[in-house]
Amino acid sequence: MGTTITNNPPRPAPKALASALEQLAARFGNRLITSQAVREQHGHTTTWIVNQPPDGVVMAQETADIQDVVRICAKNGVPVIPFGTGTSLEGQVNAPAGGISIDLRDMNKVLAVHAEDLDCVIQPGVTRKALNEHLRDQGLFFPIDPGADASLGGMASTRASGTNAVRYGTMRDSVLALKVVRGDGEIITTGTRAKKSSAGYDLTHLFVGAEGTLGIISELTIRLRGIPETIAAAAVSFETVHGACQAVILAIQTGIPVARIELLNAAQVKACNSYSKLTLPETPLLLMEFHGSEIEVDAQSKAFGEIAKDCGGGDFSWTTKPEDRTKLWQARHDAYWSVKALRPGDSIGVVATDVCVPISRLADCVSETEEDLKRLNLLSPIVGHVGDGNFHCSLVCDTNDAAEMARGEEFMHRLVERAQAMDGTCTGEHGIGQGKQKYLKAELGPEAIDAMRALKKALDPQNIFNPGKIVPEA
Amino acid sequence: MGTTITNNPPRPAPKALASALEQLAARFGNRLITSQAVREQHGHTTTWIVNQPPDGVVMAQETADIQDVVRICAKNGVPVIPFGTGTSLEGQVNAPAGGISIDLRDMNKVLAVHAEDLDCVIQPGVTRKALNEHLRDQGLFFPIDPGADASLGGMASTRASGTNAVRYGTMRDSVLALKVVRGDGEIITTGTRAKKSSAGYDLTHLFVGAEGTLGIISELTIRLRGIPETIAAAAVSFETVHGACQAVILAIQTGIPVARIELLNAAQVKACNSYSKLTLPETPLLLMEFHGSEIEVDAQSKAFGEIAKDCGGGDFSWTTKPEDRTKLWQARHDAYWSVKALRPGDSIGVVATDVCVPISRLADCVSETEEDLKRLNLLSPIVGHVGDGNFHCSLVCDTNDAAEMARGEEFMHRLVERAQAMDGTCTGEHGIGQGKQKYLKAELGPEAIDAMRALKKALDPQNIFNPGKIVPEA
Repeated sequence: MGTTITNNPPRPAPKALASALEQLAARFGNRLITSQAVREQHGHTTTWIVNQPPDGVVMAQETADIQDVVRICAKNGVPVIPFGTGTSLEGQVNAPAGGISIDLRDMNKVLAVHAEDLDCVIQPGVTRKALNEHLRDQGLFFPIDPGADASLGGMASTRASGTNAVRYGTMRDSVLALKVVRGDGEIITTGTRAKKSSAGYDLTHLFVGAEGTLGIISELTIRLRGIPETIAAAAVSFETVHGACQAVILAIQTGIPVARIELLNAAQVKACNSYSKLTLPETPLLLMEFHGSEIEVDAQSKAFGEIAKDCGGGDFSWTTKPEDRTKLWQARHDAYWSVKALRPGDSIGVVATDVCVPISRLADCVSETEEDLKRLNLLSPIVGHVGDGNFHCSLVCDTNDAAEMARGEEFMHRLVERAQAMDGTCTGEHGIGQGKQKYLKAELGPEAIDAMRALKKALDPQNIFNPGKIVPEA
Repeated sequence: MGTTITNNPPRPAPKALASALEQLAARFGNRLITSQAVREQHGHTTTWIVNQPPDGVVMAQETADIQDVVRICAKNGVPVIPFGTGTSLEGQVNAPAGGISIDLRDMNKVLAVHAEDLDCVIQPGVTRKALNEHLRDQGLFFPIDPGADASLGGMASTRASGTNAVRYGTMRDSVLALKVVRGDGEIITTGTRAKKSSAGYDLTHLFVGAEGTLGIISELTIRLRGIPETIAAAAVSFETVHGACQAVILAIQTGIPVARIELLNAAQVKACNSYSKLTLPETPLLLMEFHGSEIEVDAQSKAFGEIAKDCGGGDFSWTTKPEDRTKLWQARHDAYWSVKALRPGDSIGVVATDVCVPISRLADCVSETEEDLKRLNLLSPIVGHVGDGNFHCSLVCDTNDAAEMARGEEFMHRLVERAQAMDGTCTGEHGIGQGKQKYLKAELGPEAIDAMRALKKALDPQNIFNPGKIVPEA
């Protein structure tokens, strides 16, 4: 795969780079890795974007490691790119100007859990599954679930969210405070453990979603939740996308605190039926999860069932038994693999992209997107975090077929334009990275880009933190 | 009242100021007001801080007015201070370097309500009561309630919250997008109506809480909620602050979605009994509100009642009838006036200050604060948005008594230090303004101050937007 990225900042002078690598080798020994395979893996990206490997990878073990990498790189004008699990989708970990990737996977300690305050302090390399494993015995969980078992530092940097966001919010709502290594290696503390604060500029939320372009997150304080007493899963099919979306709008409007509400379009249901040997009606499907006490969950499910019926929904299945819940949600869990299986072949790629619109426009946006796919003769099942107006296309293309690839790019371009025309955004949860810089100006206007550029310059005057990401070229 | 504020930026040159006033008079006619009474009212502040009136007040009617004031002021290097309703508490609308106050009260239009999307677009001068009046017929409401009938522009600028924040969040959680007039008069758009986005730096939340120091908010897109089917009010007295706080911790931990949960300490209950002719036990009191369907509200109330009993709570009264709800919450509604009535006299002032701590430390923080008041022989009832760990002291002092005033300042200083030592913040919802700049460094460290100073310089290089606020002197 490969698309041309035009925002490629200049590489450091060869002498400066050599000097940085020498100093890093002296400091980190074999924790500095420069083999091609490891470098390429750290520029890994699951998009159309070509791989741009860093010049070296440092395996960080503690905050002092991050500080020293930043200091050595800053002194030599060499870029620094933070790396969590490499599951970002818009080229966030690519190294268009070379430089050093700081791999944070070994900074995976849970430093403190404050059960009474429903918060914990963690290192950036802790993954969400490891965190939930750690918390389970205390009856707590961290609700943000972007699908991949991403690192919390990466999730914060990308302002990730996922299926639970409709009830529990996104990473924006979950990060209380950060420690961030700045350009001179010193550490910025952005907040306290107080649940709310109006003490000055909101530094925390400036670094959340900054994709490592303003500094390197070395510690996070995040909010937790109590594991709900009861979890119910539910499923209902609709004849049309409009019917399904109308049910979602009514549920949100009447304040049913649904914990997850996912839309699978007909193409996605068909793919799941084929892959997971299911017999679902091949029409739009809503999958829900309700969290609460037994009484609450029962009331929520019943209320939703009535709404679904009014909106033309079919049979409403629901259950609180874990094994039946898993079965009911099978289609959603297998969605990615079912798309992969649609069209086997070494040259076949699946590109995930997302947009987000006001919920009143969701049905129109999904329907028009389906029509566009038909028009362009492209295959792309759709899955949506529909309570937030956020949906994903999984575009299946033959990377050896230049014409199809071109149609794919046209499709993604039109998808973003469609969402923006509906007062939506070019990305609900994947971030800007390299892939979506070209859409920022149309979405927010040149003044917002000016502001972003000014902020980048203010906090990273040397432009060493993940250069070439988010902010478009001047 | 009066305390010395040391961060007083230089006033503009007299000639430049005269030129700005002349141009503003030509542009705005009698909408430019320079009478002393009006100027003093626009530097109004209900703190210890001395009044510092602006040099003139412009009554803005539309965005173009804000743009022209900013352009004229920027050209002449004259400060611009946004003014909503003047209910801020830390000197946010004072004019330490003079300049022009832009009064936004006439920019009070609700521009659009999107009921299906649960959002609306408003001008900054809309007050929260006017907004809720406007929304009622559509079954919607805006939940943030800081007490005062503040303007939404001001509430966003101060990152306000209040009694409902435990369930509905703060202004941070409620603002989807802003339009902000920048230094050259052009407008920055910070977001779209999409419920979530990961499209670049979070400009929205940089301007929320910036207290008008980075630009002037000219339009807000905010999230709304459906009016709950049922509202229940409840009250229960405890023997100790620790018992009351333990009940709150358990309620939050078990996920009871309480909509309001307020603590009145014994001194506050005593004041309310006296003022409102109530017969409440003069011990710590918790007042709650539950929102939801009848079944949900019933379940929530019962669950909380059991928790309260386990934590040593007395009789648990609850009701869903509006008139009885008002009666049950009478003490809270009259809290401010009951404090005012404690000690009549022209020279008596009530100074409101707030801190916020992790909820596990709340009981300690309130108890130690009560002891400190006793030690200093000061009168200050305490009311807390206890679900957030946020509480307010209403310090009653004789402004003619220098010794008492000095003890008052000592008390407030120690209150902040106590909260910060407990990993809390110097302000949960009142902001920094002039009054709390001296506490920022102890809370976040010099690196955070550096970052804030860099951000201020990046977005307001001329330092014309509300100078002398938030960021301490270099």
